[in-house]
Amino acid sequence: MAVGEQALPELRPVAGIRAAAVAAGVRKPGRKDVVLFELAEGSGCAAVFTRNRFRAAPVRMAERHLTSGYEIRYLLVNTGNANAGTGAQGERDARACCEAVARETGCDPRQVLPFSTGVIGEPLPVTPIVASIGAARAGLGEQGWAAAASGILTTDTRPKGASEALVLGGRPVVITGIAKGAGMIRPDMATMLAFIGTDAGLEQGLARRALREAVAQSFNRITVDGDTSTNDACVLVSTGRSGVVIDDLGSAEYAEFVAALSRVCTALAQAIVRDGEGATRFVTVRVGAATTEAEAEAVAFTVAESPLVKTALYAGDPNWGRILAAVGRAGIADLDVDGVRVYLDDYLIAHDGGRASTYEEAEAARRMAGEEVTIRIELGRGKAAATVWTCDFSTEYVRINADYRS
Amino acid sequence: MAVGEQALPELRPVAGIRAAAVAAGVRKPGRKDVVLFELAEGSGCAAVFTRNRFRAAPVRMAERHLTSGYEIRYLLVNTGNANAGTGAQGERDARACCEAVARETGCDPRQVLPFSTGVIGEPLPVTPIVASIGAARAGLGEQGWAAAASGILTTDTRPKGASEALVLGGRPVVITGIAKGAGMIRPDMATMLAFIGTDAGLEQGLARRALREAVAQSFNRITVDGDTSTNDACVLVSTGRSGVVIDDLGSAEYAEFVAALSRVCTALAQAIVRDGEGATRFVTVRVGAATTEAEAEAVAFTVAESPLVKTALYAGDPNWGRILAAVGRAGIADLDVDGVRVYLDDYLIAHDGGRASTYEEAEAARRMAGEEVTIRIELGRGKAAATVWTCDFSTEYVRINADYRS
Repeated sequence: MAVGEQALPELRPVAGIRAAAVAAGVRKPGRKDVVLFELAEGSGCAAVFTRNRFRAAPVRMAERHLTSGYEIRYLLVNTGNANAGTGAQGERDARACCEAVARETGCDPRQVLPFSTGVIGEPLPVTPIVASIGAARAGLGEQGWAAAASGILTTDTRPKGASEALVLGGRPVVITGIAKGAGMIRPDMATMLAFIGTDAGLEQGLARRALREAVAQSFNRITVDGDTSTNDACVLVSTGRSGVVIDDLGSAEYAEFVAALSRVCTALAQAIVRDGEGATRFVTVRVGAATTEAEAEAVAFTVAESPLVKTALYAGDPNWGRILAAVGRAGIADLDVDGVRVYLDDYLIAHDGGRASTYEEAEAARRMAGEEVTIRIELGRGKAAATVWTCDFSTEYVRINADYRS
Repeated sequence: MAVGEQALPELRPVAGIRAAAVAAGVRKPGRKDVVLFELAEGSGCAAVFTRNRFRAAPVRMAERHLTSGYEIRYLLVNTGNANAGTGAQGERDARACCEAVARETGCDPRQVLPFSTGVIGEPLPVTPIVASIGAARAGLGEQGWAAAASGILTTDTRPKGASEALVLGGRPVVITGIAKGAGMIRPDMATMLAFIGTDAGLEQGLARRALREAVAQSFNRITVDGDTSTNDACVLVSTGRSGVVIDDLGSAEYAEFVAALSRVCTALAQAIVRDGEGATRFVTVRVGAATTEAEAEAVAFTVAESPLVKTALYAGDPNWGRILAAVGRAGIADLDVDGVRVYLDDYLIAHDGGRASTYEEAEAARRMAGEEVTIRIELGRGKAAATVWTCDFSTEYVRINADYRS
């Protein structure tokens, strides 16, 4: 299940990045499950990773390689197995994959970043992955983004991508990204993988900063079930092939680049929620009139993660009482409940601690009936705001997650 | 659905407390939905209430009446409607109910504590409740506990009660309690109501302290879905009719009384979890070797509330990777993941960041197959421990909560 139709948009090639997806037999026979990215010499690479303390072996290794001083030349991704909870063997297996890419391409293993997603706790099937690398390398091409978008999926029902063309300092620049993730989605990078490339050139510190800024307002503002995973990673590759160089934090180019990168990340993050496990509705929770952005975010996440709110959303039931109850337990000790206003879109449903006098069940139900629902909460305390995107909680979610390993 | 069979145990009468349940037509025709307790003159009354900032009108009123200086003589409970999210009208309606009891019995309205549970946000149907009070009073009896246990239920599938007989200072003492609650269960008193009576006499400060101590280790250690409600309350009535007086915090009598009260509260709390909405398994999450009890409790709740762990429990799937992932996001910044050990009962399933070498899927699955599952997590950090009780997360949970208002 997923919310609405969503075709993969046109993914513009990024000069200096080639990709390929092959069927290695890790996940299901005949399904593409290994993806290789090749980054042109001189490319920069920045990444953010899960904050879960149980981090998978490939996450730990990717972080080490990123800080090793070696220039990153390849990203190797497998789906079907997360190589997480695999102890010392997991480290050896991740290294074996990087070494295989190094042998095939003549680079150093530390120039390869490994990524894995899928079942936790099963040994990584290294042999088929290693055996597939020759074919992956042979298939590399700048048109490979769409195939890669499909090759990284797990329980996702459809590939996810976004692409922006912009002009910086008079020159055309491209940002293209793909992502996967459907369950275990939550701030701090759930079971999500995202790979974003640009032909802009970015000074390394600015690349990291731009990625962090974009992620904070996109991938870290989505939740499907409140769980975070051991494998989440979001990578930004900048090849510089457009000739545009961004090396000044105060420049218009940097600001424009971050805005475009944020749009790409937001499109990918929202695509993940729309494809949330069992999702039937895409829900925007916007909290305003808060004292601080952190307070607004905490309230938004409490509402967005409440199983009672999410099952009401599944039912299309404008059960504003459950929304009020979630706001009431979001940790604001001095909340004046009479000052809180709750809307569906722009339709006021609750204020002064109760149902709005103008409330009509039929109108409220109409606002909940579509595939896109917006819950807006005004706390009546200040001027800060935050938006979180989530989906509803369906019987299908339970079925997917009860059956995942069978 | 509910875990196993659980018949209502024998509920010993408490001298000085009379109860009755009548069908007022609030919830469903013919179903008992209004309960009245009468407390003998001289009884003491202590209570703890929800910490949700959106507190229902009856909760606010009960708290005011408790501190008004008037001796509490009646508890009036209705199910079918929570009188929550009802604004100023809710206050008037709660007061009207207290005034009706006062008129009927000749007491002051401030000697009545009102309690409501059920749908949030609909006006309380005061007329049928008020009309039922005469019949309720006429039916009052010391044998009324079992009828009261049924009369306070909402989505519960069965009544919940517990009773202890003990000897304090050579005299027999009884503690009897009933509770309701199935969804919206979580620490700090979800949609839960609990009424406990004893014929011991307790000094007022000690009664409050005893109740807080017992609740901290019982009702505040259970979770069904992480949601807390606007109406939760737990009341302890002490009539003193046994002749036993507990007025010394350091006495053996106080310690024995608190231990027995805790057993009653734990039995009621566990009965709520066993009757959790859609529950098919009763799950004990015990976290040990923690630095502090708060740390152990945080980890236990993160595991117990993880939708991915709960759906795996529903499937009977020993998916220890989801348990590790939940431990990893429980907020312990300096957690050494290699030091964490995870057991099913006494069967080691994960350590050193991965699956135990002795792990056998069939044996692990066997430990998950029953109606009672124990997840034990040793953090390898210290000596503190905490236990939380929860249930699994089933398709039936979603169905119940998606259909609740229809």
